[in-house]
Amino acid sequence: MMEIIFLGTGGAQPTLERNTTCMCLIREGEILMFDAGENAQISFLKSGLGWNKKMKIFVTHLHGDHCIGILGFLQTMTLQNRTEPIEIYGPDGIEEFIATNMKVMNFGLSFPVLITSVNNGLVVNEEKYEVYACKAEHSVTAFSYLFKEKEKPGEFYPDKAIALGVPKGKLWHTLQCGEEVTIENKTIKPSQVMGPNISGKKIGVSGDTRPTKELEEFFNACDYLIFDSTFSDELKEKAVESGHSTAKEAATLAQNAKVLNLILTHFSARYNDDKVLLEEAKSIHSSVIAANDQLKIKIS
Amino acid sequence: MMEIIFLGTGGAQPTLERNTTCMCLIREGEILMFDAGENAQISFLKSGLGWNKKMKIFVTHLHGDHCIGILGFLQTMTLQNRTEPIEIYGPDGIEEFIATNMKVMNFGLSFPVLITSVNNGLVVNEEKYEVYACKAEHSVTAFSYLFKEKEKPGEFYPDKAIALGVPKGKLWHTLQCGEEVTIENKTIKPSQVMGPNISGKKIGVSGDTRPTKELEEFFNACDYLIFDSTFSDELKEKAVESGHSTAKEAATLAQNAKVLNLILTHFSARYNDDKVLLEEAKSIHSSVIAANDQLKIKIS
Repeated sequence: MMEIIFLGTGGAQPTLERNTTCMCLIREGEILMFDAGENAQISFLKSGLGWNKKMKIFVTHLHGDHCIGILGFLQTMTLQNRTEPIEIYGPDGIEEFIATNMKVMNFGLSFPVLITSVNNGLVVNEEKYEVYACKAEHSVTAFSYLFKEKEKPGEFYPDKAIALGVPKGKLWHTLQCGEEVTIENKTIKPSQVMGPNISGKKIGVSGDTRPTKELEEFFNACDYLIFDSTFSDELKEKAVESGHSTAKEAATLAQNAKVLNLILTHFSARYNDDKVLLEEAKSIHSSVIAANDQLKIKIS
Repeated sequence: MMEIIFLGTGGAQPTLERNTTCMCLIREGEILMFDAGENAQISFLKSGLGWNKKMKIFVTHLHGDHCIGILGFLQTMTLQNRTEPIEIYGPDGIEEFIATNMKVMNFGLSFPVLITSVNNGLVVNEEKYEVYACKAEHSVTAFSYLFKEKEKPGEFYPDKAIALGVPKGKLWHTLQCGEEVTIENKTIKPSQVMGPNISGKKIGVSGDTRPTKELEEFFNACDYLIFDSTFSDELKEKAVESGHSTAKEAATLAQNAKVLNLILTHFSARYNDDKVLLEEAKSIHSSVIAANDQLKIKIS
């Protein structure tokens, strides 16, 4: 079971209802945070997530409304005596941003911070998941991210194992882990006692971007795609100028990419109500959610 | 009439109730902001102050909870098409902090920003007020500030002017502005038609600091003193270690300095309730207020 929590769903300019961009994906006790705009730590505090969890932060680009919050996070985590290392990924400049501010603001940390500049391709390869980056199209260097769970072993059928003479116990576990076992010179393969592998979930995060062919391919068949929907169709020209997308463009990309569920976010402060954006996207894609601050989505 | 608005009254670590440090003094349409911790722009938005006002920001020191908010301010003011210049004052490093972040985060501004490093003494000398700085005692270079209205002309007595043969009109205005007038070879001095000068208000802002003799003199006879009260008396050792003050120490300094009204702020996140701090200070000084976010104080 995973969970997505939106900690900030506003555009460049926060409002009383929407903080600047921040979203967390929580899986097996680890927090993968995508962007951390100003005041992310307060939304984080509200959400009840803990200060000493295993954590990675992926920054889409170095605009203040996507990265300023990291500074307060690092300071507060130190005040909370965090010891667990934190990994931060982002475009070139991410290291300078953090290092300079730590120097100028003279703050030491109670835990290690590992900073990595990203490029197109694989960014993180963990035992059970990968994260990929893909160049986005914004006013500065920006990346979109794709979280991809690795395939999980299929269902285990005890009856089949017993019928093949494999006794309950350690050998079942070996098979469940994908390894063959040998019983009385007979080799039993996992596929003989288990259903087909279950494919992992794919979750895409666009950051600030125009819709592009490259991103359409990058986000192909995502279970959830969180996409820049700064403007309504009426202000498409503004979206083009500023390197953002309209809700309709987000939905069109999601539809072409065969995305199962589209989540709109990064709404311009001019929209008191996200209805118009939601309706525009729904006219194109059948499963659309408009995110709001503290929205939680369980993903099984 | 002036007004103080507290936009953040928490300590280094914000809470759901208290933002990091920020306070505004509003006089004749100008905003003098003292410190701007993370998320100050949202408290500013809540307070209803406008984005294009004449404005100066005084930073006490370069810890994140006192200066990170400037970055979001500058970005949002640009999105609001501010044109009015903004003046920023702070310790050495303030320029590097702003310049580096503007470079790394690649943001242009719609208005001029004038940055000045401060030292002990006069910082700003305007027609009707001055601002002074005084070295504070914290873990990094830090300053306290003193806002001081200049003397205002006393009350004008029309009867006296008429009795001395000065006709109503332009000459009255000349006298009210403190200049002599001559009527039929007779010189009339302002003091002949006006009461004694009215002394201006003095408002002190400590920033993060231990109480010191120097600050006691600096804040002498303030009408309002806003002072670091991070800890209760029980945690005095922590205050000493971290370069902060207890509420009792703040009150003792205020009492010795003959301050009229003391306002406690910068409360550690460990205090859900400021009562204990308020009581401790009240045992020393007769006029104490515990600040909270969005507290407004009218000063006539």
